[in-house]
Amino acid sequence: MKEKILAEAERLFWKYGVRTITMDDIARRLAISKKTIYQYFTDKEDIVYQVVSFHIEHEMTECDRLLDGSMNPVEEMMLVSDMMKRNADMINPSLLVDVQRYYPKAWDVFLQYKEGRIINDIKANLQRGVDEGLYRPDIDLETMARLRIELIQIGFDDRIFPNTKDVMATQDHLLHHFIRGILSEQGFTVYNTLKNKEYNLSAYENK
Amino acid sequence: MKEKILAEAERLFWKYGVRTITMDDIARRLAISKKTIYQYFTDKEDIVYQVVSFHIEHEMTECDRLLDGSMNPVEEMMLVSDMMKRNADMINPSLLVDVQRYYPKAWDVFLQYKEGRIINDIKANLQRGVDEGLYRPDIDLETMARLRIELIQIGFDDRIFPNTKDVMATQDHLLHHFIRGILSEQGFTVYNTLKNKEYNLSAYENK
Repeated sequence: MKEKILAEAERLFWKYGVRTITMDDIARRLAISKKTIYQYFTDKEDIVYQVVSFHIEHEMTECDRLLDGSMNPVEEMMLVSDMMKRNADMINPSLLVDVQRYYPKAWDVFLQYKEGRIINDIKANLQRGVDEGLYRPDIDLETMARLRIELIQIGFDDRIFPNTKDVMATQDHLLHHFIRGILSEQGFTVYNTLKNKEYNLSAYENK
Repeated sequence: MKEKILAEAERLFWKYGVRTITMDDIARRLAISKKTIYQYFTDKEDIVYQVVSFHIEHEMTECDRLLDGSMNPVEEMMLVSDMMKRNADMINPSLLVDVQRYYPKAWDVFLQYKEGRIINDIKANLQRGVDEGLYRPDIDLETMARLRIELIQIGFDDRIFPNTKDVMATQDHLLHHFIRGILSEQGFTVYNTLKNKEYNLSAYENK
């Protein structure tokens, strides 16, 4: 039952945003009583917390599966961003911002992952890119890793990009701008090949 | 007297940060009574507000003087950032963040300038760069203009870049990464020439 509640809560949060969904909504959807929910969760904040933890854990596993180490760093950076974009596509854009503003405990889970793992993963990618001559040797790994993750957060924030009609397009602009900013001349060759491939695929899909 | 109070307050805020300086500190420094200060300002927030307004006005004027329209857009972007960096060098790094967190009225002045003028100035620079073939034709002007200004803000934020020893170095990394991200191939030629010139100057200065 706990898993069922979490799955339904996640679906509702993703779709409608975390603030509008009440314990009543979740209970109604599952045709159970609120009392049943309280057997497993102390309050809504607890549900938000567990949904976020579960989601991040899942995304990390998917990420590991995706990256078998055979790709070049440019491709890896684009692929991970693409995966995140596909996942984010199901999410109400205000979710990340709402969790940050109103659910500090759940946000802390994200921050812990960010400090403990995401930053290090990005730094490893950057280091590999520098070693392979695809990224500039003079980039500052720490600054660039933190910038990359910050860009994802601000890209979802409608106070920073208020006139955006398509959040995913903003994320795309920020990703490609970020990658171009770190590429060496050799890296640009690899990047342009990948980007053309991507464009061709999209063109094909639209037919 | 009002100008004298503002000038001293600005000097103290810049040097020690806005939170630590009290009305008593300002009065003591000028060897006047607090009562005299209250003849001109309703409270400390009012002083912060007027200091920020005055400072932005001054920076805008300096900016206009600097840009006579004869430069290419890449040089212009680097020059304006350099001016801001020199100005910021006198500032306690926490100032911008503290004003944002604790002095909403003064922060509003900055936001109004940002929306009304700074964004448009950056967009004009970007448009000119695209027209002259120095920036990529596919950059999104609105997103990139807002990104540039956001980068300056986050570059000062020690929650986002907690391990930074030198805030100005972070600002430099972010600026050059930003510019590289928008350059066309032709733009890179112009940028590299300018950057080498800058390096040579720095090398010369260090001797």
